[in-house]
Amino acid sequence: MYGLIGKIKATPGQRDALIAILLDGVSGMPGCLSYVVARAPDDADAIWITEVWDSAESHKASLQLPSVKDAITKGRPLIAAFESHVETTPVGGHGLK
Amino acid sequence: MYGLIGKIKATPGQRDALIAILLDGVSGMPGCLSYVVARAPDDADAIWITEVWDSAESHKASLQLPSVKDAITKGRPLIAAFESHVETTPVGGHGLK
Repeated sequence: MYGLIGKIKATPGQRDALIAILLDGVSGMPGCLSYVVARAPDDADAIWITEVWDSAESHKASLQLPSVKDAITKGRPLIAAFESHVETTPVGGHGLK
Repeated sequence: MYGLIGKIKATPGQRDALIAILLDGVSGMPGCLSYVVARAPDDADAIWITEVWDSAESHKASLQLPSVKDAITKGRPLIAAFESHVETTPVGGHGLK
């Protein structure tokens, strides 16, 4: 499996708009086992995204899906910065489907 | 919802033993919507744990479950350090159940 843990800063006041775009784009991505979007309680502009994929290839391929390309196009102007980006190798757990 | 993103360092050589204990303890935790254990590809001793709960109370209550208390007792000697611990407020996504 292939995992990502990322923190994104939205432009001021745009966090919820960016979250809505992120959530709208995540349905039906082949190989996606988990995709969770969360607010950072201590930073009004920050978003945590945690992802699990069956493979790095599936994640890479998802970036070419029309729904994802559309989300990237809509979301990019609302992103101020990518604060952290960590790759992981998920082993197992609960909620992977 | 209530989320946690944590990074744990195992004692040298004990990462997989610690992962096995962590995975063994996570079945049937009430209110747990996602619990993923992952290796850090760039650090042979590091583990990422990402969790989503229906509430902070459910997470707190899980620490009193016999299976979790047992995992904590078994796992603690294999933990060298808690490297990071972030609380989040998950909003939605895929794989929450």
